[in-house]
Amino acid sequence: MMHTLTVALGERSYSIYIGSGILTNPELYRPHLRGRQVMIVTNETVAPLYLDQVRAGLEGIGLGTVILPDGEVYKTQEILSRVYDALLEARFGRDCALIALGGGVIGDMAGFAAACYQRGVDFIQVPTTLLAQVDSSVGGKTGINHPLGKNMIGAFHQPRAVIADTLTLDTLPDRELCAGLAEVIKYGLIRDPGFFDWIESHLTALRHRDPGTLAQAIRRSCENKAEVVAADERESGQRALLNLGHTFGHAIETGAGYGNWLHGEAVGAGICMAADLSVRLGWIGADDLGRIRGVIAAAGLPVDPPRDLSAERFLELMAVDKKVLDGRLRLVLLRGIGEACVSADFAPALLRATLGEEGAGLRLSHL
Amino acid sequence: MMHTLTVALGERSYSIYIGSGILTNPELYRPHLRGRQVMIVTNETVAPLYLDQVRAGLEGIGLGTVILPDGEVYKTQEILSRVYDALLEARFGRDCALIALGGGVIGDMAGFAAACYQRGVDFIQVPTTLLAQVDSSVGGKTGINHPLGKNMIGAFHQPRAVIADTLTLDTLPDRELCAGLAEVIKYGLIRDPGFFDWIESHLTALRHRDPGTLAQAIRRSCENKAEVVAADERESGQRALLNLGHTFGHAIETGAGYGNWLHGEAVGAGICMAADLSVRLGWIGADDLGRIRGVIAAAGLPVDPPRDLSAERFLELMAVDKKVLDGRLRLVLLRGIGEACVSADFAPALLRATLGEEGAGLRLSHL
Repeated sequence: MMHTLTVALGERSYSIYIGSGILTNPELYRPHLRGRQVMIVTNETVAPLYLDQVRAGLEGIGLGTVILPDGEVYKTQEILSRVYDALLEARFGRDCALIALGGGVIGDMAGFAAACYQRGVDFIQVPTTLLAQVDSSVGGKTGINHPLGKNMIGAFHQPRAVIADTLTLDTLPDRELCAGLAEVIKYGLIRDPGFFDWIESHLTALRHRDPGTLAQAIRRSCENKAEVVAADERESGQRALLNLGHTFGHAIETGAGYGNWLHGEAVGAGICMAADLSVRLGWIGADDLGRIRGVIAAAGLPVDPPRDLSAERFLELMAVDKKVLDGRLRLVLLRGIGEACVSADFAPALLRATLGEEGAGLRLSHL
Repeated sequence: MMHTLTVALGERSYSIYIGSGILTNPELYRPHLRGRQVMIVTNETVAPLYLDQVRAGLEGIGLGTVILPDGEVYKTQEILSRVYDALLEARFGRDCALIALGGGVIGDMAGFAAACYQRGVDFIQVPTTLLAQVDSSVGGKTGINHPLGKNMIGAFHQPRAVIADTLTLDTLPDRELCAGLAEVIKYGLIRDPGFFDWIESHLTALRHRDPGTLAQAIRRSCENKAEVVAADERESGQRALLNLGHTFGHAIETGAGYGNWLHGEAVGAGICMAADLSVRLGWIGADDLGRIRGVIAAAGLPVDPPRDLSAERFLELMAVDKKVLDGRLRLVLLRGIGEACVSADFAPALLRATLGEEGAGLRLSHL
């Protein structure tokens, strides 16, 4: 069984296919290939597992492959150049396509390469992690990290299709499965309270990888993402809400050194911090915070930032966040479970307390 | 006196201001600055001449400056990174703007940095060479070179305004003035036969930098460019005609080593080669070719490619051209003076003769 969702973006509209074992189905690729040159971009972990399967579905097409090292620490300009080198060495033309076979890092890098190669070529997302299937493969955000800030160099470039094969989750390490759940929980918190309730009551099944439950979580997440992206492709408004926990999270990822915390882990802790600040502002209750921390913890994710990341360092790292306007930090905060907003309207002292500054106030979780 | 043209692209529309001494006019910048952070990107040659003048017009704004080395050989990923470093070190937000102060290389690099920084910020073109004023600053093509091909990595990213100060041409070396004329001649050849006649009869005045004549050439060139770009922003059709001489020219630039031939010089010889092939196809007469070579030569530009660039090497370099589709080389050729077309419909032997292959046929200019 396969579900098909649509991201409605006019002439840039595309389908998200969700199903088990669909990665090998040539019919899902062919309609999206304009020319006869396809470059598969993947990594050293995913290649031995799924590269041959994808290649088999694309017989008769001029196929190239770039295998990158695995991990957030390689989401750099230097490694990205290998994709350009491979495309040019193979003399790929403007009617070629890239296939991103892997998790969020591969999707972001292959997508960015597709955005820039010859000023833009097609690409197809084939996400193989839960995080990529529920979030990063949909919506066209692509890019790489800079030593001074995560995802600081990139482009909006929509894929031609997203092929999310749930069977690939069988080979996903537990830690990465948990990381993906952070983004699933996020959708519930920002705009889908019913989904949050459902997640809360299905966390055990999700962590035990029950196929039907996972497929349901992926589908509902993609529905939420597709709606938000269709309404605000380039993040001039509500799309920013998808960044709940991400300003704190990106600071954690950069501060801890790329790759030491998985993106989803940092987002998990970041969501708890956003909820913490929302409580201090009186926007949600301490009981809501408790419930949120409970779900994040039950998803196998950290609820607190690394101990050695000081409030000062946090503020420094958050100062380059993409939501900063006119030098003012804006954060995604909660007005309730299922309702988020972007706000710059908080007393600095409250933020410092959330960041754990000595003397600024106790962590609410310790109250 | 200042002329204002419009590039009509819906919500991405913008003005081209052409005039003498307008670079210092704050009124031309202010309406296009959303935030209070502006990064001026320029090079070591232009900075001592015009940087302070531009800065003076932007008092009260948070200004940063990046001064890059001068020349096509520096249009690389490595040098581009300096712009990102400067933006992040200064913690510039998504509402910042970049100002490209310089020639085509600076415009392409600053524009590409603006396209990718935080997935896209504003930029203003302040072209200081004839080539940039008549061509590269208008239309949103940005990018960098790759060792295997020119402009292979880039983005379509329109500026918010183009401020073409003709006074800056006073400091332009003769060789660069001539290089700019190649693009002026191009507009006449591809779509404006009356302009070609006018150029032919005004070449002496242009090379003597008569201000009124230069301003007229810039204005008419920009009118042509603006019309083509408005009709076909992302080069799915007629915009490709603007590349007359460029496929040959890019091969010359890459083959000779970036910077050894100026872009305009390579385009000048490239235009003659496109005309040569058009004669071999019987599309234009030998008299047309003679006239075209005469104008290119009178503009102080080379009419033949470098002697040491073999036909084989040419074909190899042209194989990565952005107009290649499905592995097939397409070229902009002439159907007449003032009428160009894109075609893949030529016998390989004719192209080889144009490329000077031994035994494939004499150069027409030697007939």
